[in-house]
Amino acid sequence: MTLALQSDQAVDALTAVDARLADYFADAHPLVARHGPLFLRLWDEVAASTVGGKRFRPALVVDTHRALGGEAEAEAIATGTAVELLHTSFLLHDDVIDGDTVRRGRPNLIGSLARDARQGGLGRSDALAWARSAAILAGDLVLHSAQAMVARLDLDGPRRHRLLDLFEESVFVTAAGELLDVAFSAGVSEPTAADVLAMTEWKTAHYSFEAPLAAGAILAGASDATIATLTRYGRRVGLAFQLRDDLLGMFGSESVTGKSTLSDLRGTKMTALAAFAHDSPFGAEFREAIAESDPSEALARARAVLVSCGGQVYVEELIEAQVRSAVDVIDAGGLPDELHEYLVDVADRATRRTS
Amino acid sequence: MTLALQSDQAVDALTAVDARLADYFADAHPLVARHGPLFLRLWDEVAASTVGGKRFRPALVVDTHRALGGEAEAEAIATGTAVELLHTSFLLHDDVIDGDTVRRGRPNLIGSLARDARQGGLGRSDALAWARSAAILAGDLVLHSAQAMVARLDLDGPRRHRLLDLFEESVFVTAAGELLDVAFSAGVSEPTAADVLAMTEWKTAHYSFEAPLAAGAILAGASDATIATLTRYGRRVGLAFQLRDDLLGMFGSESVTGKSTLSDLRGTKMTALAAFAHDSPFGAEFREAIAESDPSEALARARAVLVSCGGQVYVEELIEAQVRSAVDVIDAGGLPDELHEYLVDVADRATRRTS
Repeated sequence: MTLALQSDQAVDALTAVDARLADYFADAHPLVARHGPLFLRLWDEVAASTVGGKRFRPALVVDTHRALGGEAEAEAIATGTAVELLHTSFLLHDDVIDGDTVRRGRPNLIGSLARDARQGGLGRSDALAWARSAAILAGDLVLHSAQAMVARLDLDGPRRHRLLDLFEESVFVTAAGELLDVAFSAGVSEPTAADVLAMTEWKTAHYSFEAPLAAGAILAGASDATIATLTRYGRRVGLAFQLRDDLLGMFGSESVTGKSTLSDLRGTKMTALAAFAHDSPFGAEFREAIAESDPSEALARARAVLVSCGGQVYVEELIEAQVRSAVDVIDAGGLPDELHEYLVDVADRATRRTS
Repeated sequence: MTLALQSDQAVDALTAVDARLADYFADAHPLVARHGPLFLRLWDEVAASTVGGKRFRPALVVDTHRALGGEAEAEAIATGTAVELLHTSFLLHDDVIDGDTVRRGRPNLIGSLARDARQGGLGRSDALAWARSAAILAGDLVLHSAQAMVARLDLDGPRRHRLLDLFEESVFVTAAGELLDVAFSAGVSEPTAADVLAMTEWKTAHYSFEAPLAAGAILAGASDATIATLTRYGRRVGLAFQLRDDLLGMFGSESVTGKSTLSDLRGTKMTALAAFAHDSPFGAEFREAIAESDPSEALARARAVLVSCGGQVYVEELIEAQVRSAVDVIDAGGLPDELHEYLVDVADRATRRTS
């Protein structure tokens, strides 16, 4: 998905974000290299794990800032880069929590370090334990780096504090969503349908949409009303984006999304889609389907149940409702035309995507 | 151990740090509570995990700042609090990495959440996996919080950037030390004695001594020369402090340190003490001793080997040498008398402690 406007300016901005990321990793190299080859290896893996992202979060910061007539281009690029690093840190710790060793179709940091450790003679479970510990530390470094990039901006006090507060809110809300996600999977907590929707919103919408849009607006010196409009819009589009992600996780083609369509099922991830099926008269049938030993048979049966119980249609309708509501918010928000048009386009791309 | 000067001022400062910590946790309460009872439970566990620390790191910031005639008392207290939060975040992730469920003689966050999950019906390994995932998220929140407290200080640009750089260095150096610690334990990397000393220094000395001392000096507007002197001193005392910790881990009384004297042994933690024994002619005997099935027998035999191979004396001498070298550094550093006297006292308390 490319959410950025396809203008030359937008492409330039994303090139600038990539350059900023590369600079950041290179600038830390001397400090890292002084602390041994293993630490350098970890850092290079971290840098590699930022490659291949769609960069739509930085694009939201940069494009929103520009559409509001902002003049803090360099700060918008740095903030966009910080959001991308925050995303990377969440992915790193997510993979530890979920036990994943593949990301974007390649071995992730854990998979790569574990493979090396096994070649060095370690057993499978020791190699994985080592690699997961390293990934916890890697995520810490990147979480720090994200925040440091915002903290180092030389802005006037009010904008600096507002950005720091926004960043803090993102870290907290995302952690709350992740915590519920893990709790539901582990069976610590029995979610209602509303709980699953709240979890879905918290773990994605704030840091992926609300915060990037609000950050762009804060940097542009926008009014409180504009920031509030963007926040409300971002929450709705962010929820719709994650719901689309859930649908793609079940119905999408693995070759397009780069994710295993079965990974959500097997990890008993609780999505709005799965929650609907569980609570429907088809609940028992759904649980039987995902317990099927043959993976492709399990997937085919689960898909069939999700269609017949009405879950797929229910989630498609939720997405539509969120997008309509998001557009209503910006229609009433008195935003500049260019920004309004951009946000309509973003809502469309974020929720109708196939990958 | 109380490293703070026992003046009324110093006691006031530590009370202020405790108050700052309590305020921080309370201020975040509304945001946390909006995200469900489970997230609130996690936050309260995080707050509880900061209770009972010795607060010697904040004391180093506040006392150094004051001894250098600084006038940024509130900022020194906030920075000291940030260092304490950084320490807490390292402990939280450490416990995940080491699989520990006890800290300071009580169930840690993992132990407490796992106990509740078991009471809720989860099996032992599922309950632990859930609790460890929650602890990863908790550590992320606190790592963020530590840095946010520094980032929010309204200092002039040079001092702000210098503090942010120092904080960054601390996060990186500590992670490098942790990574080596894990690598040595896992058998990913075969350490030399020098590697073990480097690991020992990196994982503790920077964030516990170098950074707090340098932060106090930066806030007081001290000269580069003074900051460099404090950094060199802190590295030496910090290494000696960790070596004393290693000795206490093996020879200390569990009732005094609050740690299991066997935890280091059983986790095959590589300390300078253990490395000496492994590399000595008593290496085979040492490995046999720690493999002994009866814990108290294992401990008694390991202690005997560490004495007879000369490991205990070797580490005691290392500590002495670091302290002498640290005092040499400050003798030549042209520091104010009050600070010099304070630092001599800190070196003594940090390395001659029994708990």
